[in-house]
Amino acid sequence: MTKTDDLGAWWRTSIIDMEPGRIAIRGTPIEELIGTVSFPQMIWLMTRGDLPESAQAQLLEAALVAGVDHGPQAPSIAAARMAATCGLGLNNVMATGVNMLGDVHGGAGEQCAELLFDISARVDCGADPEKAVADVLSAWRDTHGKIIPGFGHRFHKPVDPRAPRLMALVRDAAQAGTVSGRFAEIGEAVQTRIGADRGAPIAMNIDGATAVIFCELGFPPPLARGLFCLSRSVGILSHGWEQMQQGGRNKGPMPPGYLPHYDAPDEDA
Amino acid sequence: MTKTDDLGAWWRTSIIDMEPGRIAIRGTPIEELIGTVSFPQMIWLMTRGDLPESAQAQLLEAALVAGVDHGPQAPSIAAARMAATCGLGLNNVMATGVNMLGDVHGGAGEQCAELLFDISARVDCGADPEKAVADVLSAWRDTHGKIIPGFGHRFHKPVDPRAPRLMALVRDAAQAGTVSGRFAEIGEAVQTRIGADRGAPIAMNIDGATAVIFCELGFPPPLARGLFCLSRSVGILSHGWEQMQQGGRNKGPMPPGYLPHYDAPDEDA
Amino acid sequence: MTKTDDLGAWWRTSIIDMEPGRIAIRGTPIEELIGTVSFPQMIWLMTRGDLPESAQAQLLEAALVAGVDHGPQAPSIAAARMAATCGLGLNNVMATGVNMLGDVHGGAGEQCAELLFDISARVDCGADPEKAVADVLSAWRDTHGKIIPGFGHRFHKPVDPRAPRLMALVRDAAQAGTVSGRFAEIGEAVQTRIGADRGAPIAMNIDGATAVIFCELGFPPPLARGLFCLSRSVGILSHGWEQMQQGGRNKGPMPPGYLPHYDAPDEDA
Amino acid sequence: MTKTDDLGAWWRTSIIDMEPGRIAIRGTPIEELIGTVSFPQMIWLMTRGDLPESAQAQLLEAALVAGVDHGPQAPSIAAARMAATCGLGLNNVMATGVNMLGDVHGGAGEQCAELLFDISARVDCGADPEKAVADVLSAWRDTHGKIIPGFGHRFHKPVDPRAPRLMALVRDAAQAGTVSGRFAEIGEAVQTRIGADRGAPIAMNIDGATAVIFCELGFPPPLARGLFCLSRSVGILSHGWEQMQQGGRNKGPMPPGYLPHYDAPDEDA
Repeated sequence: MTKTDDLGAWWRTSIIDMEPGRIAIRGTPIEELIGTVSFPQMIWLMTRGDLPESAQAQLLEAALVAGVDHGPQAPSIAAARMAATCGLGLNNVMATGVNMLGDVHGGAGEQCAELLFDISARVDCGADPEKAVADVLSAWRDTHGKIIPGFGHRFHKPVDPRAPRLMALVRDAAQAGTVSGRFAEIGEAVQTRIGADRGAPIAMNIDGATAVIFCELGFPPPLARGLFCLSRSVGILSHGWEQMQQGGRNKGPMPPGYLPHYDAPDEDA
Repeated sequence: MTKTDDLGAWWRTSIIDMEPGRIAIRGTPIEELIGTVSFPQMIWLMTRGDLPESAQAQLLEAALVAGVDHGPQAPSIAAARMAATCGLGLNNVMATGVNMLGDVHGGAGEQCAELLFDISARVDCGADPEKAVADVLSAWRDTHGKIIPGFGHRFHKPVDPRAPRLMALVRDAAQAGTVSGRFAEIGEAVQTRIGADRGAPIAMNIDGATAVIFCELGFPPPLARGLFCLSRSVGILSHGWEQMQQGGRNKGPMPPGYLPHYDAPDEDA
Repeated sequence: MTKTDDLGAWWRTSIIDMEPGRIAIRGTPIEELIGTVSFPQMIWLMTRGDLPESAQAQLLEAALVAGVDHGPQAPSIAAARMAATCGLGLNNVMATGVNMLGDVHGGAGEQCAELLFDISARVDCGADPEKAVADVLSAWRDTHGKIIPGFGHRFHKPVDPRAPRLMALVRDAAQAGTVSGRFAEIGEAVQTRIGADRGAPIAMNIDGATAVIFCELGFPPPLARGLFCLSRSVGILSHGWEQMQQGGRNKGPMPPGYLPHYDAPDEDA
Repeated sequence: MTKTDDLGAWWRTSIIDMEPGRIAIRGTPIEELIGTVSFPQMIWLMTRGDLPESAQAQLLEAALVAGVDHGPQAPSIAAARMAATCGLGLNNVMATGVNMLGDVHGGAGEQCAELLFDISARVDCGADPEKAVADVLSAWRDTHGKIIPGFGHRFHKPVDPRAPRLMALVRDAAQAGTVSGRFAEIGEAVQTRIGADRGAPIAMNIDGATAVIFCELGFPPPLARGLFCLSRSVGILSHGWEQMQQGGRNKGPMPPGYLPHYDAPDEDA
């Protein structure tokens, strides 16, 4: 291998193949995909390498539609709106918002998918389903504390309205044979178990319901976060753009009259 | 207005209305949208406030599908792949890539849409169409130089394969009455004129063709950039994720054996 | 030139020269700089190519110290604090804050430096100083509106306390022969003129005073923004880190009980 | 507590206290700091709450000077240069580069500081120093693999020239009583132990040497990353600015003639 060959292999991809006048995505010329596949199908093709059936793509589409927005109280949306008042282009506004979707703000779907896959794998290895659920929850709590990603909502009490609708779509898809329904069952078993553990019912939230969908469709957990980022990008763009039209310069979190509280060091004494 | 009222109005939106257990997007409860509208319809609803007809959404969808990827030679894709080797989460990887879509890398669609609207407005005010095209091109060149956004491609010679396919879809949509076809005509007139000016034919590229679509559908120019960012986010996510699976640590642009050229100051002497 | 040579020249720099075991910055081995030059001297060396005199570096240092923080009401600081509650690493927290320093939030120093250099250049070409000031202000207002970057402050009335201190240091430096004092004079002439134009005195703010310093020291205007970003990075880091220690999860701009105002579409009717 | 009080406490800080015309940093009016404290002293004051002695600040300054740049092969620098060719402002260019300094690219100093503090704490609790070193290294390898952060360098063989210079400054500072020298000793014990374990000497790198300095000065480990981000921001700014002056549009990692390798799916068959 010459040095130049070495160079050619420095960046390698199985996603796209290009030469002048030709772009092939996963082996298919782009012009055969444009106007033919849906945007969710394209997202699936790009991230996974094959085209989904139409029913699979519709379930993915429901998850993508569900997560677009949670209003200016969400840090991702607020940061994008602030960015819009600082003179940034829409691309920078969007990047600012998406950058915020870290483990705490954007990671619950990924973490929940990991829990669901973990339970599923234990059952495949012969574990009793109820015990698998209890063990996985217990291991999570030991490491991360009592909040189980995908269940409960600090704002939407008693129920996050997105979750039951998404779960109904999963059950329909299971009945139609599009998905197995296995992860919906596991998700519900987790919900039951958390409720029993805390002595009060708890509801699955959007992160739990989308995690069920992504697991049913075979997406690996990190893509649960990635797909949520795509979905939320729509809200980030929309709010950034709305803020640009409203105007405002250097908008901080509160009106100028509200000063942050100063914790003088001697207050601790 | 009390101080607290003043506060409530500090962040205001017509996109989303929430209370515990309720999320309404542009006035419609989210659970009525999930599984009912397509992802492109949701993007339209979020950014514009109303739901498009199905045929309009399909034209938008074609534009979203077309722009997802241009391979690791594109700075947005390369930066995302590098970021993935630096230990970042997928949200940060995506933000890094999207941040790159500035005026030069992600702004051509927006700039082209501005040109097309400008020509259209002049014609509406009674200008001769050919003269409007010539005047707008001339004004652009005076300020920005000879590269007209949306036309020609440094890599895809003679033709960017995405553009003719998109333009065929626009013509179909015009024939079906979904759009007027007016901006397709203007785009073609611009293409003809640039070709005449330089004495050699030039082809519309993806930025030109998507600008035509966004103009036909009534999106304001800044959203041409925003929608491209959404589209390209799919490629950024896919390449970031592929790179994570390939591994690699701190990958620079070239293999470690290739050092950048050092321009010693006395070389200028 | 072989293809591989072409490659070697793809990235070229006069800042750094490296080979295994050797790092030279602007021609000087790094180990000769560490412990020998101050951090501001290093910033000057990196951005400009030569080492400043100690007195020059001290004036730069004063400007770097002055801009570090403006509290959680500043969008850059607020976004960093929010990011810290979303589970991001400190690098991503800092990037989120720095990204916000666009034309409106971080560009005033650069814009003011451009005005000062423009006035200076006109005087060099023989213009009457007072007329040069008036013409440059008038041209700015025609394009950008009435706010002149570097003068006035929406919060610090009547005076931003950083500006008079910085200007006193400039005057001292001019008296000592470290700088010419020319841009301090121009800045004061601009201040006088704006006051006359609006019929009420106006004070130079930190962006004006640092712009004067950067012009006196010979930094091109875009570096005025870059140096401010370096300075403000200190505050962004400090607030992000303080927020991490305070804890909090997904902190939006206001407490959860405060909902953004929903502008229903029919409110416009 | 009224709702508005609750609001005032939503953002709280002990860093800065402001009212119109007054800015106090950690209790000191900003105008008393400008021109009086050095930039490294200000960095210390902002991040920690008190002002360091001059000798302490000089040791911090050496660490800040050492890390500014590692050339365009570093992903942080390369991404910034690419960003500069995409039409971004310098603030966005800088954010793009700093965002890259994740666990792999920017986290080694923080991780090394954690190891050093861990060894120190074990010795404080009565452990044998050699055993503490061996146990901490062994625990790290079990979780993270064989690369110990802060030691060895893939490019600078045999020695990263920044580390011995920094360590000499630490030894001088220990002799002068500025620092205890304890973490320098621990760092050297770690270096010896790794060398013995692998049967070949290994050298401390810049991350190890700066971790020693930050530990000696009492900075908590996350600030090791934060301070490195501040330092590297200087290089990111300088290279971004140099690239802006060189020009170039949409520069990918390699010249346009070098295409990434396409891994066709059937190559795996």
